[in-house]
Amino acid sequence: MKKDDEVELKIRNLGNEIMNLLNEERAPYFSIPMRNLSNVEFDNDKEKIMIKDKILKRNFLNVAHTRKFTQTLFSASIIYEHLLKTGKTTSLRDLFYMMKRTIPNTKINLVDEQIESNSAVEDLELLMDVLRENLHINAKKKGSVAGEVIVKDGDDIIDWSKLGSGGWAVPSNVEDIVFKESNAEFVLFVEKDAVWNRLNEDKFWKKNKCIILESGGQATRGVRRLLQRLNKELSLPIYVLVDFDPWGIYIYSVLKYGSISLAYISDLLSIKDAKFVGLNGNDIKRYRLEKHLIKLKDLDIKRMKEIENYPWFKNKKQWKEQFEIMKNLNAKVEIEALSSNGISFISEKYLPEKISNKDFLD
Amino acid sequence: MKKDDEVELKIRNLGNEIMNLLNEERAPYFSIPMRNLSNVEFDNDKEKIMIKDKILKRNFLNVAHTRKFTQTLFSASIIYEHLLKTGKTTSLRDLFYMMKRTIPNTKINLVDEQIESNSAVEDLELLMDVLRENLHINAKKKGSVAGEVIVKDGDDIIDWSKLGSGGWAVPSNVEDIVFKESNAEFVLFVEKDAVWNRLNEDKFWKKNKCIILESGGQATRGVRRLLQRLNKELSLPIYVLVDFDPWGIYIYSVLKYGSISLAYISDLLSIKDAKFVGLNGNDIKRYRLEKHLIKLKDLDIKRMKEIENYPWFKNKKQWKEQFEIMKNLNAKVEIEALSSNGISFISEKYLPEKISNKDFLD
Repeated sequence: MKKDDEVELKIRNLGNEIMNLLNEERAPYFSIPMRNLSNVEFDNDKEKIMIKDKILKRNFLNVAHTRKFTQTLFSASIIYEHLLKTGKTTSLRDLFYMMKRTIPNTKINLVDEQIESNSAVEDLELLMDVLRENLHINAKKKGSVAGEVIVKDGDDIIDWSKLGSGGWAVPSNVEDIVFKESNAEFVLFVEKDAVWNRLNEDKFWKKNKCIILESGGQATRGVRRLLQRLNKELSLPIYVLVDFDPWGIYIYSVLKYGSISLAYISDLLSIKDAKFVGLNGNDIKRYRLEKHLIKLKDLDIKRMKEIENYPWFKNKKQWKEQFEIMKNLNAKVEIEALSSNGISFISEKYLPEKISNKDFLD
Repeated sequence: MKKDDEVELKIRNLGNEIMNLLNEERAPYFSIPMRNLSNVEFDNDKEKIMIKDKILKRNFLNVAHTRKFTQTLFSASIIYEHLLKTGKTTSLRDLFYMMKRTIPNTKINLVDEQIESNSAVEDLELLMDVLRENLHINAKKKGSVAGEVIVKDGDDIIDWSKLGSGGWAVPSNVEDIVFKESNAEFVLFVEKDAVWNRLNEDKFWKKNKCIILESGGQATRGVRRLLQRLNKELSLPIYVLVDFDPWGIYIYSVLKYGSISLAYISDLLSIKDAKFVGLNGNDIKRYRLEKHLIKLKDLDIKRMKEIENYPWFKNKKQWKEQFEIMKNLNAKVEIEALSSNGISFISEKYLPEKISNKDFLD
């Protein structure tokens, strides 16, 4: 079944369940897993941040629930009629405006703040076990990609190897992209667009048979889904290239293990076998970066302490070492520091060496 | 002459001038316009924020100048050898690391902070009347574009009409792109990627013979240069679609009139005949957006007061009216509010109406 048809069916099923309750003269309700922090944990078997099993019942006749119940059902109806049936997509912000209205004969707005319509969409994601992208609701658009891959997107056939210095702009919503051909053996995700530019200009993706993808900082949902699909559907390993600082390590952490705020869709976003290709603390000596250490600021130290205590880092010897190095040096190092060894050092030496030696952190 | 050859020649000329002074046993120096606020003004004839005529002399034998003089000359040598001669480009951050070194037999670093190497590059832009992009130094990469345009970038021929839901990622550096074919009659610049998604999905660019370009907020140098080149080389009008708030109006202001920090290259970045296609204060009533007003915050009010006093807005009746409306309502409105009239209202009604009626602010 096509994904859209499947989602439409799920929405109709949800509606039918509510109707059945009404026909039986029972109070309409639905049940979803709780999304608050107390119901989130790191699942050691799955190696992902997952939602636990506490369930929340939203009952229309409970006045504390009426508003949320109505918002969720109404958002489903808007999504069904205006998005799925038309084949159009939109943003959370637009959906908020599409939902915003005064309930007839009252002074009550269905939604007053975007947080309410956002929450309704999260309810639907959980109720139907889909991503909001499957509900045609896009996230932020950011990032670009290049490599010897051909995809089909709508009616267009797009060759990622023929897009000059810009590359393909990663769409907000990558659910409907079809991978047609690929000559890639791995995906290199880079945090920084300047590093991507260097790799693209050096045709790193051609020489090393790979895909290069940048997100201009923290990866968007679109970028994460694209990486996961490349990993699952084309069986490509994902290598993550970030700064040696708490923020870079956090980007890696989110890609691999998921995040607390999106724990309820970790299965659809996180990439269990992503590898950390650097920078790491040992690179400082090996690549003579001692002169390019940047002293940690208070905010860096605070963030480092949070991250080193994540259960998925805390008990791993290799990550303990990394945090020890960072603490002892009281410093971070940026990827761009490698340029002190030559403008193309990163694409001609650092990355080929790391990758052929499988010199990764895990 | 090719741009690269021209820039190389300019760097050699700079070096020769310094050598001539040394050969004549005179103190080496160079002169550039001052970049501080006191030397920046709005040029009423050109309608741009321009640099004035105060000149600064950097003299190697003046100890207050020695450091800056050396940094600028050294950056020219790095750029000549590692960028222009190799055909490679890089970022300001990488250039900083490429320049960073200890002067032999001293404990003095040539540069300690990136602000120093940045300033050296700005010196070179002024000394040689080029953009840093012509020196192969890229700015931030952001934004995407679609439309019936074919460009050549390196060896690749890229058709902006065949790039699915993503579009072409606007490169950091658009200096070497060649426009091969175009069926466009105007360019629509949109601040927000979500709005771009809507327009792209509706094939607005096909139905309205135009180019749509988004920058995910404030336009990067790459986006501004691309817009200026489309305006100059293809004679396309530029329409700017932003929120009705001080931040949206500022984005328009920078695109059209330039900015104080980049006043010294206004001629190469600003677009005199850019038009403001909305949202404007009159749209609120016309498109029934009264329910979607968002109260101004203190920061919005502060910014609004700064912007309404810009000399290029202060004396224009139509802009005075806009700021009056914003003040009287004490509110701003977002583009997405138009979605309350229907998901494709913006592409089927708002924009076609505005554009065919030439209902712009200037």
